[in-house]
Amino acid sequence: MSTLDPNTPEPVVTDESPIRTTDPVPTPSSPPPDVVRAASMELVVTDLEASRRFYVDVLDLVVTEEDEDTVYLRSLEEFIHHNLVLRRGPVAAVAAFSYRVRTPEDLDRAVAFYTELGCRVERRTDGWVKGVGDSVRVTDPLGFPYEFFHEVDHVERLAWAYDRHTPGALVRIDHFNQVTPDVPRAVAYMENLGFRVTEDIQDEAGTTYAAWMRRKPTVHDTAMTGGDGPRMHHVAFATHEKHNILAICDKLGALRMTDSIERGPGRHGVSNAFYLYLRDPDGHRVEIYTQDYWTGDPDNPVVTWDVHDNQRRDWWGNPVVPSWYTDASRVLDLDGELQPLTSRTDDSEMEVTIGADGFSYTRKGDTEHGFKLGATL
Amino acid sequence: MSTLDPNTPEPVVTDESPIRTTDPVPTPSSPPPDVVRAASMELVVTDLEASRRFYVDVLDLVVTEEDEDTVYLRSLEEFIHHNLVLRRGPVAAVAAFSYRVRTPEDLDRAVAFYTELGCRVERRTDGWVKGVGDSVRVTDPLGFPYEFFHEVDHVERLAWAYDRHTPGALVRIDHFNQVTPDVPRAVAYMENLGFRVTEDIQDEAGTTYAAWMRRKPTVHDTAMTGGDGPRMHHVAFATHEKHNILAICDKLGALRMTDSIERGPGRHGVSNAFYLYLRDPDGHRVEIYTQDYWTGDPDNPVVTWDVHDNQRRDWWGNPVVPSWYTDASRVLDLDGELQPLTSRTDDSEMEVTIGADGFSYTRKGDTEHGFKLGATL
Amino acid sequence: MSTLDPNTPEPVVTDESPIRTTDPVPTPSSPPPDVVRAASMELVVTDLEASRRFYVDVLDLVVTEEDEDTVYLRSLEEFIHHNLVLRRGPVAAVAAFSYRVRTPEDLDRAVAFYTELGCRVERRTDGWVKGVGDSVRVTDPLGFPYEFFHEVDHVERLAWAYDRHTPGALVRIDHFNQVTPDVPRAVAYMENLGFRVTEDIQDEAGTTYAAWMRRKPTVHDTAMTGGDGPRMHHVAFATHEKHNILAICDKLGALRMTDSIERGPGRHGVSNAFYLYLRDPDGHRVEIYTQDYWTGDPDNPVVTWDVHDNQRRDWWGNPVVPSWYTDASRVLDLDGELQPLTSRTDDSEMEVTIGADGFSYTRKGDTEHGFKLGATL
Amino acid sequence: MSTLDPNTPEPVVTDESPIRTTDPVPTPSSPPPDVVRAASMELVVTDLEASRRFYVDVLDLVVTEEDEDTVYLRSLEEFIHHNLVLRRGPVAAVAAFSYRVRTPEDLDRAVAFYTELGCRVERRTDGWVKGVGDSVRVTDPLGFPYEFFHEVDHVERLAWAYDRHTPGALVRIDHFNQVTPDVPRAVAYMENLGFRVTEDIQDEAGTTYAAWMRRKPTVHDTAMTGGDGPRMHHVAFATHEKHNILAICDKLGALRMTDSIERGPGRHGVSNAFYLYLRDPDGHRVEIYTQDYWTGDPDNPVVTWDVHDNQRRDWWGNPVVPSWYTDASRVLDLDGELQPLTSRTDDSEMEVTIGADGFSYTRKGDTEHGFKLGATL
Repeated sequence: MSTLDPNTPEPVVTDESPIRTTDPVPTPSSPPPDVVRAASMELVVTDLEASRRFYVDVLDLVVTEEDEDTVYLRSLEEFIHHNLVLRRGPVAAVAAFSYRVRTPEDLDRAVAFYTELGCRVERRTDGWVKGVGDSVRVTDPLGFPYEFFHEVDHVERLAWAYDRHTPGALVRIDHFNQVTPDVPRAVAYMENLGFRVTEDIQDEAGTTYAAWMRRKPTVHDTAMTGGDGPRMHHVAFATHEKHNILAICDKLGALRMTDSIERGPGRHGVSNAFYLYLRDPDGHRVEIYTQDYWTGDPDNPVVTWDVHDNQRRDWWGNPVVPSWYTDASRVLDLDGELQPLTSRTDDSEMEVTIGADGFSYTRKGDTEHGFKLGATL
Repeated sequence: MSTLDPNTPEPVVTDESPIRTTDPVPTPSSPPPDVVRAASMELVVTDLEASRRFYVDVLDLVVTEEDEDTVYLRSLEEFIHHNLVLRRGPVAAVAAFSYRVRTPEDLDRAVAFYTELGCRVERRTDGWVKGVGDSVRVTDPLGFPYEFFHEVDHVERLAWAYDRHTPGALVRIDHFNQVTPDVPRAVAYMENLGFRVTEDIQDEAGTTYAAWMRRKPTVHDTAMTGGDGPRMHHVAFATHEKHNILAICDKLGALRMTDSIERGPGRHGVSNAFYLYLRDPDGHRVEIYTQDYWTGDPDNPVVTWDVHDNQRRDWWGNPVVPSWYTDASRVLDLDGELQPLTSRTDDSEMEVTIGADGFSYTRKGDTEHGFKLGATL
Repeated sequence: MSTLDPNTPEPVVTDESPIRTTDPVPTPSSPPPDVVRAASMELVVTDLEASRRFYVDVLDLVVTEEDEDTVYLRSLEEFIHHNLVLRRGPVAAVAAFSYRVRTPEDLDRAVAFYTELGCRVERRTDGWVKGVGDSVRVTDPLGFPYEFFHEVDHVERLAWAYDRHTPGALVRIDHFNQVTPDVPRAVAYMENLGFRVTEDIQDEAGTTYAAWMRRKPTVHDTAMTGGDGPRMHHVAFATHEKHNILAICDKLGALRMTDSIERGPGRHGVSNAFYLYLRDPDGHRVEIYTQDYWTGDPDNPVVTWDVHDNQRRDWWGNPVVPSWYTDASRVLDLDGELQPLTSRTDDSEMEVTIGADGFSYTRKGDTEHGFKLGATL
Repeated sequence: MSTLDPNTPEPVVTDESPIRTTDPVPTPSSPPPDVVRAASMELVVTDLEASRRFYVDVLDLVVTEEDEDTVYLRSLEEFIHHNLVLRRGPVAAVAAFSYRVRTPEDLDRAVAFYTELGCRVERRTDGWVKGVGDSVRVTDPLGFPYEFFHEVDHVERLAWAYDRHTPGALVRIDHFNQVTPDVPRAVAYMENLGFRVTEDIQDEAGTTYAAWMRRKPTVHDTAMTGGDGPRMHHVAFATHEKHNILAICDKLGALRMTDSIERGPGRHGVSNAFYLYLRDPDGHRVEIYTQDYWTGDPDNPVVTWDVHDNQRRDWWGNPVVPSWYTDASRVLDLDGELQPLTSRTDDSEMEVTIGADGFSYTRKGDTEHGFKLGATL
């Protein structure tokens, strides 16, 4: 059953998590680790030099440290060692979604929590990557390589180093976005891990297409997007202002790299943030994001969008390109092998909204101008 | 012959007008009027109340004066009576492209210039619309209703009235854009009228697809776009900053009017300006525009873009929607009747760049990522 | 003893709270309430109509509800009933600094915590103001009227209502700033209440002039500024971007109200935020603030600024006006009477930095240009 | 007699030049050269390396060409060889205010015009500096070294080179500002040279304190500021947006160079532009400026500000620092010797507005809050 009233043209706001699953991951008796925030991603890239150019020379992320096979990058306001690790490897993939936890003891909790879930769990006292100490990696119940760490080297926070800021300055890592077949099941697991839903997309039949979940008081630390998974949809970095995002587009134009722009810039409906989606040399998707809203109150209203609302993904109604729905990065298990994919069996957001079988509305029940490119698909 | 070198991947910069016509409009012996700037457009609208809501309540243009059938609007930094006239009528169309001329005597010059060209010319000492005195209207050699005026009522320049500015504040009228079948012929006529080309789009065979022409020292007061004509492609208003344009999109989202957004926002290649295209309730196209560059030097470099350069129309390589190429407003003769259309016989920019027969490149000769929606058309 | 190295020209970054007190408020054995964020302030104003014009017509805060003697206001992204209460009264003062707590049970904790501290504590099940339920008000050990509440009416979050946003849109309440004689003593008490120091200002002798303290993961929910107290220095609202703050100045200019601008706009050294200080019709100070940084990690680096560093209060070195140091609003006890003031005995930041006895540097030990107005004071 | 009505609290808008002189420079019978725009300034600097750091490393102007004693700089949207020449010399001064003229023949007109005025005139067919051809330099009737040129090398316009743009990108030279004792006399001479007044500052007695004059359709190509002269008050460069100007301040903070900030950032009353005044290593003043308005209509309304209007120089009422009134750069004669100074005998704007004998108002006749630093001077 859906929280969407068939006659309601606006997003529905509720005080409760609007998503229920009939196929839950079991709830461990062990308490979850206290996750502070999405802190870093480890990406395997096939051409390290090309990736370094993209993230360092084009996006101006700061190199904290690098060696022949690895580049450790951070955003300008970060004080921990890195927010992104580029590691040379044979197949483009994600090796870790890394979360910072509040205390060293939260690593014990992570071990207990995932062990109880029957997951593969591996703890390395000296860390899996440079700059980070004692860490736990797991293959989680959805098949994703999740990492938890507390110990980390501190580096200079370059917030005040304006002589190093560029027009498209990336100041924070903001969130991950994951592709998984069964969104309600994923949400239930993440709620057990201590995450809360802030927004989601449903249809009137109650199918859930995506959900945004947070630990830190923004719209998300990660989102669950329905699709064949486990895959990584994108990792997002924040700018201070919208013009910073436009400047990245302008620079890509000057560098004749605009085919790296996949979607946007635009305003999201979900999250109300201003966004841009890029694709790195391996096709890994990076979002540039700014200005979502405070969600830290315990009764933060949850916003449920109708999948047919044409402004849910882009508040201006600009079309979502098909690749944005279909493409995503593979993820690795703890041995570095590609995780197998499970197909989504619920309806596809792309199919119900664009193309021959889909439809979207700007004003429910009203005739619309047909100027948009989306209308031609 | 083309000014485009087949091996040059960047726009070509020259000091001379790059366009030659083999079918010129005759050059009058009378000197042209001294045009100061594109100053106003008179639009016939079929639902005046709906149009008033669009331009006044949504776009926040200022009402200088109105009566039952007409609304006179201006931008916030304007000191003349109006930049846009909405007049109720049976068929949506453009009644006048109005240019301010330097002196009252320039009206005599306009009469002589167009009379010599064999055009229909009508002068009204009391003006054709309120707020404007002695004016000349002509049906020009391309079939457009051009108006020239000098006498005009002064009204308050609201530049400092920040209590009346809104997030999407429109501060100036910037330019017109006209659709005409034979761009080189149109350019030659406009050069006789004292305009200069600042940028244009050609192909290697020398076909000219569009040209931008100016009197005031910006990229244009009007542009000539190849297509069936005479038609009006758009009228453009300027904002101070890019965020003002984004705010208009955000407001349209809040009003559930995003189907009024036809294309953008984005960065133009041609003109280097930031842009947004809207469609009013009659389908008249309005551009919101900011930050082109100084062109007032007598030897201002002319920039010629390759029609296949994917960044010419959008510097970020985002696709142009087909309606932007195909739709335009009809124009009226001096009796208020629709001008007949003449078809373009030269190649169509849309056909040579998108769809089955078209192609575009981001980097000449290089393989590209195919993420863009344009790639799917 | 100071954490400042006499030879260090830059702010000192440490992982520990850099402030120690020799005169602590006792630490209660009861755990403190779990404070979520600074949520609202209740201001007593002497001319409610004038104050309403200032906050509603000029600053565009949203009226949630009002009656003859009270106006309840909120910012555009707020979903609780109000962030500011204007109440008509005989003497301009602050009646409450209100914090939202995580659970209803946190009110019991607040009662126990402050009762143990020997403070006057008063709980009202129906709340002290409209829109808020069960609440506890105390006169805290520093003499401030602190309020804690959890129950609150939800109202529409206007984040997406861009048709109601204005150029200076205030989107969140950000923080309070309090004046108190003994900053280290105040800090120790607030640490007991669960706050953490993020930045502070000291001199080489170890005198602490001000400290910024947070619950939510920004630079502060409140700051303690050294001076005669208890007084309220300011309440701060956030905008999305810097141009929104400039737009407020522009609007005040248009309204011929620029004598309401006390200081700024400028960039803070402490917090790295962009700021503006206004004074309302009663002289209550309001800060408009944007773009500080993430502080939510448990080991967030603490930044200690030298009181003589000319960029600590304004990163551009622009002078602080004397009134900003000397003026502040009186606060009320729970009976609505003015709290008596205690004088600061430690050095005054104003006296050690400006005027005959003060000095500041831009580059330690270097000769400076003397262009600044500050140099003339 | 003044155009100011003693009871008018707002600037007065008229269609005519509001300034009359009783001591005019004779009007030559020769027509003036047709000046296109303020195009370049030649500055003598005493420490070329320090100046180069300031203009190139801090302000990010582009080096077109340089040798041991000279650096030629341009802004990002410029296509002529330079907008600023730094030349090593023994005494900091201005060697030339250079205007571009429309045709080569305008140099003949400049020679005739200034010869008839009895000025020293020197023409160099190969130019006075690199990149510029045939040029005329004069010591004008006010004692300023004016240059006129048409021939100039074209260089790449970096408007689209966004990979080279920085957060404080300077895109155009905008104007000069000159200090001269008798403003009405200076205005009459400049009107003969073809300039028009757009705004001015007067008092009720008719004393003129400053006037803004334009050839290009912005508020000014140069301004005449009353004071001991001939001296150069400042040269101004334009950015696209206001945040670009704030970014320059932020960068100066990061470089610990904030004592280079003399005044601002702020919003001008006169011109309505957003501004910042810097001082280079020799004390030459540079303004960063954005967003004035179109003035190109022949009947552009002239705005006359009351010298006592506290918002005329800063729309937000922030105080003008005394050095801004008193300091200016000396100028050279054609032999490179310092021009002698003539004292202003009319009232001083600084003296009538600040200090013991001055006053300013925000609202005429109304009591004001006294928060501002200006109030303490």
